[in-house]
Amino acid sequence: MDAKLLHEQSGQRTFVIVLKTGEEVMDSLNEFAKSDGISAAQISAIGAFSELELNYFDWSRKEYLKTSVMEQVEVASLLGDVALSTDGKPSVHVHVVVGRRDGTALAGHLGRALVRPTLEVILTESPAHLRKVHDPESHLALIRPRAG
Amino acid sequence: MDAKLLHEQSGQRTFVIVLKTGEEVMDSLNEFAKSDGISAAQISAIGAFSELELNYFDWSRKEYLKTSVMEQVEVASLLGDVALSTDGKPSVHVHVVVGRRDGTALAGHLGRALVRPTLEVILTESPAHLRKVHDPESHLALIRPRAG
Amino acid sequence: MDAKLLHEQSGQRTFVIVLKTGEEVMDSLNEFAKSDGISAAQISAIGAFSELELNYFDWSRKEYLKTSVMEQVEVASLLGDVALSTDGKPSVHVHVVVGRRDGTALAGHLGRALVRPTLEVILTESPAHLRKVHDPESHLALIRPRAG
Repeated sequence: MDAKLLHEQSGQRTFVIVLKTGEEVMDSLNEFAKSDGISAAQISAIGAFSELELNYFDWSRKEYLKTSVMEQVEVASLLGDVALSTDGKPSVHVHVVVGRRDGTALAGHLGRALVRPTLEVILTESPAHLRKVHDPESHLALIRPRAG
Repeated sequence: MDAKLLHEQSGQRTFVIVLKTGEEVMDSLNEFAKSDGISAAQISAIGAFSELELNYFDWSRKEYLKTSVMEQVEVASLLGDVALSTDGKPSVHVHVVVGRRDGTALAGHLGRALVRPTLEVILTESPAHLRKVHDPESHLALIRPRAG
Repeated sequence: MDAKLLHEQSGQRTFVIVLKTGEEVMDSLNEFAKSDGISAAQISAIGAFSELELNYFDWSRKEYLKTSVMEQVEVASLLGDVALSTDGKPSVHVHVVVGRRDGTALAGHLGRALVRPTLEVILTESPAHLRKVHDPESHLALIRPRAG
């Protein structure tokens, strides 16, 4: 993972982060957010994966259903955000759309993914805190803009 | 719908807007744009819907074909913009990609959608006007950067 | 292609670029990047195409496999970036997700595409250089944040 600060203006920082072959996406982004002390940010990326785990939130069971995609795919869209989890640590939330060999698309919440050969990420930090709060209905931690 | 101003710099404002279970997306975003007097903005979001109406512009008929998706889906990508419509009011234009239970993806112009449990929206306003002008060929109102 | 500067702040410029019926996307965006001397930027767009060529990087052959999509589609997501190629010229890299008449999605690296009736692009330039370097493993030119 290589990163570079592209722009800084009154507390808003924009980084480019490039992941390389074999790097795991969620670990890398969480590590970046923690080491740079990021408490609110927007993430956008394109690239390719050699494999990934795609999640779907099963509303009746209130848990994620996992689909393993064990093939090289284009990352057509990766969008996400960073907010402070209920334990106060930065937490990265990412959704993706990937394109298969025949051009068809898969989409969902990103569990984990291995990059091959590159993932080009833009992370725009906001000079504010975003906090997640436990939501009793979904059993998920969700961003509450007015919390904290 | 809860919103918070994340950043403001020389007329450019960045908001986080979080929609909750049961809120309709297009109504909520149009209401936000009107009440905050937004005349040019970029929108990006991830989250999940309990149902949605996906539209496809049928070029030969010059009208939208509607597909109802009556199931819980992950919102893998929601991108859009705000511009002033031909009547001078803010108009929100949104396209989405959603992931189904089996990981396959649907995509198109967003008609309407109900959030469940969350939609995390970043709206970046520009200190400029974007105006839509009636396009005689498509019968649609399209953004014309040099108008007005 | 019509463009307008929406915002400028300490070297960071945000443009709206609107492409019209019949314009080819990659040529138009590369032309814009060259004529405005853009060496690092993020691109995001929605709209519709009358046809496109979708690419998938075949890892074993180290070359792009091309799929021609000869039908009107919604552009649900177009994300990309601009960096300086190994020859020092701005190079645009774009991935897309498109929605077909039945709502199903296709996704991949964008080869070429014809707009119909509109493509609404936001291009955010960074006051920095991003450089691509030849990657011997993939045989592709990839962004290296610390290069140059």
